[in-house]
This record gives sequence, structure tokens and C-alpha cells, in this order.
Amino acid sequence: MRQKRFFLQENEIPAQWYNIMADMKNKPMPMLNPVTRKAVTVEDLSQLFSEECSRQELNTTDRWIDIPEEVREKYTYYRSTPLVRAYGLEEALGTPAHIYFKNESVSPVGSHKLNSALAQAYYCKKEGVTNITTETGAGQWGTALAYASKVFGLESAVYQVKISYEQKPYRRSMMQVFGALVTPSPSMSTRAGKDILTKMPNHQGSLGTAISEAVELAKMTPGCKYALGSVMSHVTLHQTVIGLEAEKQMEMAGEYPDTVIACFGGGSNFGGLCFPFMRHNLSGKRDTRFIAAEPASCPKLTKGKFGYDFGDEAGYTPLLPMFTLGHDFMPANIHAGGLRYHGAGVIASQLLSEGMIEAADITQTDAFKAGCLFAEAEGIIPAPESCHAIAATITEAAKCKESGDAKTILFCLSGHGLIDMSAYDQFLAGNMTDISFK
Amino acid sequence: MRQKRFFLQENEIPAQWYNIMADMKNKPMPMLNPVTRKAVTVEDLSQLFSEECSRQELNTTDRWIDIPEEVREKYTYYRSTPLVRAYGLEEALGTPAHIYFKNESVSPVGSHKLNSALAQAYYCKKEGVTNITTETGAGQWGTALAYASKVFGLESAVYQVKISYEQKPYRRSMMQVFGALVTPSPSMSTRAGKDILTKMPNHQGSLGTAISEAVELAKMTPGCKYALGSVMSHVTLHQTVIGLEAEKQMEMAGEYPDTVIACFGGGSNFGGLCFPFMRHNLSGKRDTRFIAAEPASCPKLTKGKFGYDFGDEAGYTPLLPMFTLGHDFMPANIHAGGLRYHGAGVIASQLLSEGMIEAADITQTDAFKAGCLFAEAEGIIPAPESCHAIAATITEAAKCKESGDAKTILFCLSGHGLIDMSAYDQFLAGNMTDISFK
Repeated sequence: MRQKRFFLQENEIPAQWYNIMADMKNKPMPMLNPVTRKAVTVEDLSQLFSEECSRQELNTTDRWIDIPEEVREKYTYYRSTPLVRAYGLEEALGTPAHIYFKNESVSPVGSHKLNSALAQAYYCKKEGVTNITTETGAGQWGTALAYASKVFGLESAVYQVKISYEQKPYRRSMMQVFGALVTPSPSMSTRAGKDILTKMPNHQGSLGTAISEAVELAKMTPGCKYALGSVMSHVTLHQTVIGLEAEKQMEMAGEYPDTVIACFGGGSNFGGLCFPFMRHNLSGKRDTRFIAAEPASCPKLTKGKFGYDFGDEAGYTPLLPMFTLGHDFMPANIHAGGLRYHGAGVIASQLLSEGMIEAADITQTDAFKAGCLFAEAEGIIPAPESCHAIAATITEAAKCKESGDAKTILFCLSGHGLIDMSAYDQFLAGNMTDISFK
Repeated sequence: MRQKRFFLQENEIPAQWYNIMADMKNKPMPMLNPVTRKAVTVEDLSQLFSEECSRQELNTTDRWIDIPEEVREKYTYYRSTPLVRAYGLEEALGTPAHIYFKNESVSPVGSHKLNSALAQAYYCKKEGVTNITTETGAGQWGTALAYASKVFGLESAVYQVKISYEQKPYRRSMMQVFGALVTPSPSMSTRAGKDILTKMPNHQGSLGTAISEAVELAKMTPGCKYALGSVMSHVTLHQTVIGLEAEKQMEMAGEYPDTVIACFGGGSNFGGLCFPFMRHNLSGKRDTRFIAAEPASCPKLTKGKFGYDFGDEAGYTPLLPMFTLGHDFMPANIHAGGLRYHGAGVIASQLLSEGMIEAADITQTDAFKAGCLFAEAEGIIPAPESCHAIAATITEAAKCKESGDAKTILFCLSGHGLIDMSAYDQFLAGNMTDISFK
């Protein structure tokens, strides 16, 4: 019987994360302190983030960073996640391509986000922090941080983008089951929120705004740190457990990917899967393609500008050197809330500027069409975000069908879509429209 | 590092199901044809069910039944499911007990139901059937059959209990993603539905009523067979893949369960996990306890009568020798829709009458309290049905704490609760009340 799923033993779960910055010839440009406009220091960052995460953020020299044993023990609750050969999808497409996906949807909270949430909560706990705050779009990250906070005995407060808070009530419920205090953003609980609501009372919220609110709460609250679910280099670092596992599992399958694909919001599942494979490109041993699938309505990679910009709406964060649509860009209300972000992480931005990464723009309807095909073929209903990666995979698999070339494609199933069924309803009813980028 | 999860290799997934009837000293009494009142034959049953399932239903002699290779291949999409040592729950309870759970929630559709749906859809396809119909409560079974039908190229029509159809719209959406035609029951599309709506226009539906509708549709439609998600012996047979895997996995963990626990609706996840272990009781080698956790508001095992009754509201099915609250019993609208059924499967009923099985009645609020504790400790939000098994497990673990006895407890996490978050909302808001049995 052909093997469908590949697992690692628990003692084979990576003991270290991979820091791609150590291998980059051109390091990312420095982040700048928004006040002094000088390169941020660990001290600057640790006003907001845990000290260890702040150090990791600026660490451009250590290739391997140890995963704390306490975090690794919690990883065993769901890791290794399966590497799956998508026989069903291959057959549905009639492609000679070998398609694999790394199934991060099996995590307790339904997405890859937990990989970093556990690390961030652990470091906070270790450093004597009592409260964590964050923002969340679709709710995947907020759920992960709520659970991770519960695991390590911290209080958590989550600002959820209002449109998602209303569209996806089940995610709010999940966060509440894990003990989080959840507030729709923009809210009246922060100055940043009040300012926006005063100008635009019907503001539907955005990740940029919610970040401003969470950052403000962290700054104003003793014993409280802020945690971010993507964009930052330390978040992507934690996510490299995905790619490091996948590399071992592909070896079990006797293959190496020609093309690696992931959806792209801030870049954490993308970098998490891709960077461990990219290290073999950087060392000249491999020539793998890496494709970032972003929403056509929020196309920072293909239509954004590379330059310094804030990570949030209000301008509280450091200035980041990144591909951006502008920190005041208001993304369309697509269902893939996790991809509604104006900028790309600094590492991915640098690599994109050097041509190491390709980007594909996916319309919302193409994403859901791909998601439904995948659900029928593989049984798993993907998150709207992951649908973008699937759509890009289908495009590549179609090229293989045309050329007869049996390439090996690996993509990240970053999460499941069980909490997003109302979006599928809309798609199946023919009521989904595409919002073009302006 | 202590091991948390145990998996089998794909070639270790059982190649046969276990038929406990072959080992029972007292076979279940025969089911009776509702018209002739004579013992039903394979011919009788195959008017409704596929021929192979009809044969399996009445097979009391073959201990092992081969799993078709086509079904086993589809099992690899999600099996083996993990056996998990619940370290988190043990620590939260401070119990010396070793608690394990078999995590069936990782299946594509979120529950154990797929184990039988794949088998039933496969046999139908092989026998030239084109359409399958069934009923569903919470939607777990309907989703499984919808997906299994898609896998084997059949059309599916599902009658969903109206209260669940309205309470859990996401399950309906899932069924629709898999191509099923979903109708809330009672409906005007069948005589059985019309009769009930004429008498009670606001009827909220029940499994018994939905079964009547699906059975009627199957009888009236050429090329259409009916499939049932529990109660019948062939369904439980297919579910024994759970217990057979668990047995091997417990061996990997170096343990054997003193107590095995599962929730009980019709008995399929219960029998599926328990019967493979019970065979060692029947052969005199072991003395394991088996506990069926049922809702206090639908207590057929503790307060029902053992005798002949119909499986459905309208009286279309064979008469089954079972513990029953009466086929016209209207279960309370608890969230555990899968446990809202008036009768117990014939095998479990026979074993209960002989004292081989214990039963525990769990109130709805106790179930959800247990579910929240489990979610915090293990990260997985359980289905309302599974919460009953967890509550019973917690009771047993508390006894161990009191006695200091480190017993090994194994329970079935039959499904996840991500589609049931509105029930958790109600519980967390303090708005859940217990409905007493009348």
C-alpha cells in the first residue's frame, strides 16, 4: 500500500529552530526606532516583547537557536504534524506532479500559529511577565496565544479585528474557552481605538489598528508584554519547526521539493516552511522555487513598495524595511483575515528584493474554488488563508500536466476552515465577489 | 522526554474488523420484520442497506471480517488516529491514574463516524447503488456520509434534525461542501415528515423522525440505499478499527486499560473502542470495566426497558431487541445531538443485560464543565457528545485520587467541538440549564 502520511517520532521533533539571517549574504536592513530613527536595540524591543524574543529578533549570527525543553514538550501535544502526499488532489487534477502538504491544521487551535505562541508565552512566563496582549484577524493567532497563555499560566487579552469578531463568532468562543479577554477592535479601551472611532465610527477594523491597540495596552500595563503572530523575524524563527520537520519527512518519502508554496500574510507560515529548504539554495546545493500566495486585493509583494513603514496603523511600532502598501492601507474585507495586512516581514522582504522568492496574486473566488476542490479530494476543509496556497499549487500542477514534467510540489496547509464555513456558504451560494486592488 | 502520542505505521492499520458476536455466549436476540414479526433475513435488510452490510449485520459466526483494500486506503487519509496520554488532564486533576484517549477527532470530518461511512459508501458503490440517504443529528454522521459518498462517487441526501440544522449551521455547510443535499427534518418531502408536521407544526425534530424520513426516501427511490451512523451491529463492526488500533497503541505505551469509557448514543463509538478489549474479558484473560456515558436527560441504559422496539419514530425499521425509552420518546434539546436517541444497539443491549457494561448518567452542565477542563488541559475542544465520556473519566480519576490507586483509564474522544462553539458560549455565559428526565 502506498504511504499517504509521514510522521516523525517525538524524539525526532527538531530541538532547534533555524535562523536564516545567519546565512543571508545581505542581512535585512535595520528596523528603526520611531522616535530616534536609529536602529532599534534589544532594549528598545524588550519594552514591548519578551527579552528573549527581542534578542532573537536581532540575532543575525546564530544559525541554530535551541527550542526550550518546556516548549518542545508542549509541541508533542500535536507535533510532528503529518506530511501528507496529496494523492486525492493529484488524481483530481490529473497531474503528473507529486504534491505534498504539511498539515499544520491538526494543531489544537487549528493552525500553525501555536508554534510561536507557545514559545512567546513560555519566554514571558520565564521572565516574570503576568499578562500578554495581542491582536488577531481571523482569530487563528488569538486562539493560539490564548491557549499558550493558559498552558503557561498567564492572563491574555486579545484585540480582534471587528469584521472577523462579527463574521467568526466561534473563534471568539474558542479564545474564551481558553480564558482570554476578547475585545473587538477598534475599541474605546485605547487612545488609538478612540481616535479611529472618532474619525470613522463604522470602522470595520484592520490588523494594523488592532496592533496599535494591543501595543498601547502593553505599554500602559505593568507586567504586560505584547506578542505578535507574524511579520517579526522571531515569529518566523519559531515557525521553522514546520520546514525542519518537513525536510525530514520528505526524506522519508524519498523526495525533495522542486517548488515550495505557502500563503503570505506577514510571512510566518511562509518563512516557517520555506526557510529551512531555502538554506540549501543559499549554500548553492539546491535550486528550489519558493512561491508566496497573497490575496489579489492586498498585493504587497507584487504591487507594494520596498521601504521603511510602520507595522501598525497608529505608528507605534518600529519602522520596518519591508514591502508595503502603506500602514494606512485599508485591506478589503476578504475572508482570509490572516492575509489582510499591509506589509511583509523584513526577512521575506529582503529575499523578495533579491529575487529569491516569487509571489502569486490569488483572487478570493479562485482561492475558495481551490479550497472546495481540495476538500473533496483530501477531505480537509482548508482555512481561507490556506486556500491561497492551494490555488497557487493547482496552477503549478497544471503547468506540470501541460509539460508532462513530474515536479515535486510542497505546500503548507496552514490551518483548517471549520470556523470559516460561513465563507464557504457564501461561495457555494454564488454570492462571493472579488474585490480589486485600488 | 516522556512520550505523549502513539501512532501506528500505515501497514499496521488493522486489516480486519472484529465481530464480537462470534465470541458472545448469548447472541443478541433476532431483529424482527415489522410486518411478519419473524426474524429478519439478509434479504429483508438489503431492501434498505447494502447487501454486504446486511450480511455483516446478521453474521454471528465470523470473528474477523476483512476490511476492503479500497476502504483501508481511504483510512490512511487519517488513520491511525493518535492514542494520547493525557498528561495535561492528569496534572489538572492531580490523579495518580494514567489517562489515555483515542483521538478520533482528527478525522477529516472531525469524528469517528467516517470509519463506517467509508465502508458503507464503498459497499454501495460496489453493488451498483447510485444514491445514499441518511439522517443526522448534530451533523457528525451526515458530514461523514457526505464525504464518503463524494470519495466513492455517490450522490448523498441527508435529513438533519431541525434543531441541529438551526443550532449548527456550519455542519450543514460542511455537508454541502462535500456535495450533499441537506434537508431539515421533519420535512414536507416524505409522508413520515408530513404526518408529524400536521400533528405538530413546530416539531424540532429527533433522530427517530429523521430516520423515518431517510428510510422512506430510500424505499421510494430506485438505486438508492439507506445508511445508518450507529445502533446497527455492522456500524459498530466498522468502528472496531478504533479499539483494535488502541490495543496495539496501548501495547506501545506498555499498558493495558483497567477501565474503558465512551459516550453512548446508539453505541457505535462505544462498541468500536470497547469490543476489541472486551474480547479478552469474554475469553477470561482480562477483567476490564466498560463504562457507557449517556446524557441524564436521555438515559436509556439506566432507565430504559429491555425489549422489542422500533428504531424510528414512524415504525418503518425492524423491531430491535434493545434498551429503549420508547420509539416515541422525545429527547430534550441537549447540545449533544448525537446522544439524542431513544434506544441502544442490540449488541450493547445484550451485554448490558448481562452486566458486562456499566452505564453512567451525565448532566449537560457536568459534561460541558468536563469539556472546558479538558480543553484547557489538552488544548482540544471536545464535541458535546465526547464531553460525556470525559466527565465519566474525571469521576473515575477522582476515585483513583481518593484511593491512591494508579489505574489505567482509556476513553474515546469521539469528535471535536469546533462546530459546537455556540454551546460552549451558552455554558460559559451561565445560561445552560439541565433538563431532567421525565
